[in-house]
This record gives sequence, structure tokens and C-alpha cells, in this order.
Amino acid sequence: MDELEILHRVLPLLPQNHDTVVGPGDDCAIIKIGNEFQLLAVDQVVSGVHYVPGKTPAGVVAAKLLKRNLSDIAAMGGKPHCALLTLAGNIDNDQWYLDFFAGLAATAEQYEVAVSGGDLASLPPGCPPDCMVATLTITGKVAPEQICLRRNATVGDKIFVTGQFGDSFKSQHHLNFTPRLKEAGFLAGRFTRSMIDVSDGLLLDLGRIAAASKVGMELHCEDIPRRPGASIEQALGDGEDYELIMAVPEDAAENLQRQWPFSTLLTEVGTVVEEHPGLVFDRKGVNLSTTHKSGFKHLSIK
Amino acid sequence: MDELEILHRVLPLLPQNHDTVVGPGDDCAIIKIGNEFQLLAVDQVVSGVHYVPGKTPAGVVAAKLLKRNLSDIAAMGGKPHCALLTLAGNIDNDQWYLDFFAGLAATAEQYEVAVSGGDLASLPPGCPPDCMVATLTITGKVAPEQICLRRNATVGDKIFVTGQFGDSFKSQHHLNFTPRLKEAGFLAGRFTRSMIDVSDGLLLDLGRIAAASKVGMELHCEDIPRRPGASIEQALGDGEDYELIMAVPEDAAENLQRQWPFSTLLTEVGTVVEEHPGLVFDRKGVNLSTTHKSGFKHLSIK
Repeated sequence: MDELEILHRVLPLLPQNHDTVVGPGDDCAIIKIGNEFQLLAVDQVVSGVHYVPGKTPAGVVAAKLLKRNLSDIAAMGGKPHCALLTLAGNIDNDQWYLDFFAGLAATAEQYEVAVSGGDLASLPPGCPPDCMVATLTITGKVAPEQICLRRNATVGDKIFVTGQFGDSFKSQHHLNFTPRLKEAGFLAGRFTRSMIDVSDGLLLDLGRIAAASKVGMELHCEDIPRRPGASIEQALGDGEDYELIMAVPEDAAENLQRQWPFSTLLTEVGTVVEEHPGLVFDRKGVNLSTTHKSGFKHLSIK
Repeated sequence: MDELEILHRVLPLLPQNHDTVVGPGDDCAIIKIGNEFQLLAVDQVVSGVHYVPGKTPAGVVAAKLLKRNLSDIAAMGGKPHCALLTLAGNIDNDQWYLDFFAGLAATAEQYEVAVSGGDLASLPPGCPPDCMVATLTITGKVAPEQICLRRNATVGDKIFVTGQFGDSFKSQHHLNFTPRLKEAGFLAGRFTRSMIDVSDGLLLDLGRIAAASKVGMELHCEDIPRRPGASIEQALGDGEDYELIMAVPEDAAENLQRQWPFSTLLTEVGTVVEEHPGLVFDRKGVNLSTTHKSGFKHLSIK
């Protein structure tokens, strides 16, 4: 049983309550609090997996952790509100912790996020030095008319993406990216009701919209904007792009391109179709996940 | 610089926003969402620290993780609402993960908590097998007139505690405890506006109320109810009791004892005084933290 199989067994077990608007399975959950719609998500950063210990500065690690979560808030069409942090570490260096919190505080301030709590602990006995696991829980707010869900893509919609793809690690984009909150605020409700952020790879995350919406995705690989030096293969599968994929109704697509007010690239890369529900394929109908590396499969109950 | 010194340097850095009613530094933060007051807290459970790998069943570990957070919600006078989980593990045993989630789901259902999201990852490379770090973020709700804060204890208040203290590990109380939500719902706003839950030891956590309220605490050690076989020393310092300490105005103390409707023990163990602000001392004025083990000092930015 692999991690995704565990996930499929586990998800239906988790209880919900009458305030659950959207449960686990999207970029954030949505919970009704009085008249407000709250977004909730959590994510982790692990040393040696998401950054290079001894090389990536502590403050940059903390900023990445927060920005990963901000990208999830953006994909729902929301705005961030509060964050809670945990850190389990074996790092014998006071300055590392001080730098980590300084980086967190500066990034939180920049995106107007309150840091509402946290907890620090040691890693389990026997773990090597300079290791750590940090988690961040984000809360956000979303206007009901701006909620964007993976399941809302409709046949005929055009698929747009922000930014460029591929080679996120070598280019350091995985550390230096800007979460697309500004762009999402413009798009959500006005031009789209269906977005996802690309953390695990364009092909895999586009497939998640396809699966949730029970539609097929015809992807025009040659149109995908790539980071300098990145191959189509890398653009499809590398992951950690932290860009947005969105489904835009056909009659809004032209207006969107005309009215787009940002310097961030916005590119049409495909169409939502009826055939092959749950799959991403090319113009010839070839299932791309059988011919291309399909990204990182994280076990996530988001 | 020890962990508490890092904490004192870090806390003032963390940005808040205009919805922050109570920031980090109590059992939970309180955030205004529309007309509602939301409680937020996060806590960790680490293998080899909070449970014995290969011995404590996975479902019991998950239940402990959730119940630790429920105890924080109780101490604020609130009710739990939603939870988000992370697990970073090196456990090569599918059944362990399934049991963990089954235990989490059952406990969440029992306390009417929705599990709104989560994330799973591996521990950093090089960590030994059968290790894990799990975190749980809890959200809750509290009525404004029931909010209980560490800083609200007043000179003349009587100090009460629920339950018994000491020897939490050997007795397995640290796994089998019941968070005092029911009792807190009865107490909060009616008999107290100042509570804390005892996770790090009675002496240390009572000292936290003293420090936050800028008052002294005269503690009658011989009155503290102890678990069978526990010494006064253990009752003061062992920790993981997950009981409530509360400050009750003198004129309400008698009514409280008369009206107490639960089988859970409720015991008066001391008085809030003007002398020695921030300290806990005995009838003779001896500072107990200089003569007794003062509990576990976790680094927590709650």
C-alpha cells in the first residue's frame, strides 16, 4: 500500500461538522464561522527534502514555509489571516532559530499575517544533527462569491496558468517565488471559480482539477511557459512552481487576456473537454501521465 | 542561550493584526472573526518523548495529540471546532498509519471536532526507523463572557484544581486522561475568568498564572490531591496532568464547592496574594521553585 492508498482509506474516516463548507481534498478546507468563510490549511518543510541544511539560510526556510501556505490561500481565491508554527529540531545553533523566526516575522508582516502561536520541540532521539521538521498552519478568509474549487472546472473552459514552469530547484525559484495572492484576488469570482496551485508539478496538479471536476484536460505542452533552460518534461513534472492553474469560461477568456493588469505572465495552455475524465492528454489524445514524469506525489489530506 | 531565552527574544518579533484579541502567550490565541471569537493553538507529539515507540498503540498516540489540544481549549473556557494534522514519520508499517488515523477520527468524533486537513511527510534523511513527529492545530470558539486568561487572577482569589497530580507517566494517565472541557464549560465566566491547563507541572503552570497576573501564589502543598503513590514532589513537578488550575473570586468559592456537579475532584489548594509577584511559595513564604523540581520547560510560543 503506497501513501496515496493510505490516504484514500483514511479520508472518509475523518469526521466533519455542520460548519464544514469544503472538507479535506482541496488546497484549503472552508469552514463557516458566523457569517464568515474561513480557509484552513497546513503544510510542512523538512530539512534535506525542501531545503539544503547548512546552505539555505534559516530565514529563507521560514519564508518558504509561510509562502507555500500563502500559495494555497491564493488558489482558493482568499486572503491570509493568521499562522501557527511548529518546529522540531536538532540544531545546536541559537542564531539559526533567531534567524528562522526573524525570517518568519518579516514574511508574515509583508503579507499581513498574524503569527498567533506555535510550539518548539526536539526531534526524536537518534536523529542526526542539523535536522528539523517545521509546520505552519494558515487561516484565511474568502468571500463566498470568490471561492475557487478544484471541482468547479466545466467542459469548454480554457486553462490558463500564471508564470513559468520547470527547473524550480536549480533556479532557486522554490525559495524565491512570490505567492500569487494579488493575481488570485483579481481572478477569483471575476474570471474563474476553479484554481489550484502548482506545488507537485503542472501535470499532477492539473490532473487533480480534472479528477475533482470529472472532466478531461487537453494540454498544449508547447504553449507552457518555461523557465530559462527548462525542458517540457521539467515544466510538466518538476514541481515547486507555486503558480496558479485556473479554468476560465470560454466567453471570459478574451476579456481576461485584455484586462490582465499584472507583469506576471498569464498564458492559455489548454481546454477542458468531456473525453477522458480525470486525465490530462495532448492534442492527439495521448495520456500525458503515461509518457511524462507526473510530478511529486506527496501524501496530503488537504 | 536556553530555549526560554530564545523565546523571549522571538515573541516580540511576531506580527499581530487588528483581529488579534489575545496573541501568543496563553493556552490559545484569540482572534476575532466577524462577531465570533476564535481560539487557535498548536501542539506536537514526538516519538520517544511523548510516547514509547513499539509500545504505545498508534491510535492512543493520535488520541493523546488531540486531547492535549482539547485541554488548551478547555483552559480558555471554550469549545473545540476543527483540527489540522501533520505527521512526519519513518514508520515502515501501513497498519500503524491506519491505526493512527482511526484513533484520531474516533477521538475527534467523540469531542465533535472536524478534521479539516493535514499533511504527511518523511522525517529528514538519516533519522532512525519507527520515529515520528506529529502536530495538531486546533481551532475553537469561546463566548466573550467566558474567556479565561492567565493574566486575570486577582489578589484574594482562591486557587482551585481539578483532578489529581503526579506520576502521570507510570500510571499511564498521560495517555488515558480526559480533557476537562465539560468542567471548563461549567466554570468559565460563572466562577472564574482565569485558568491554565497543567501540561508542564503544577508548580510551573501555576507560576505562569502568577507571572501573567503579576501576583503571588500561596500554595498549600499538603492539600494537592495526588495520584495513588505520588509524592508531593511528583505532584508539583511531574507534568502531563492535563488538569485545570483556576483562580476563583473569594466570594464565589463557597458557592462553587456547593454547586460543583461533577465526579471529578475539585480542590482548593491556595490563595492569590500581593507579595512575591510572579512566584509560587508556601505558607512560610519559601519560594517553591527553589526547593522543588519545577516541571518541564518546553519552548512554546503559545
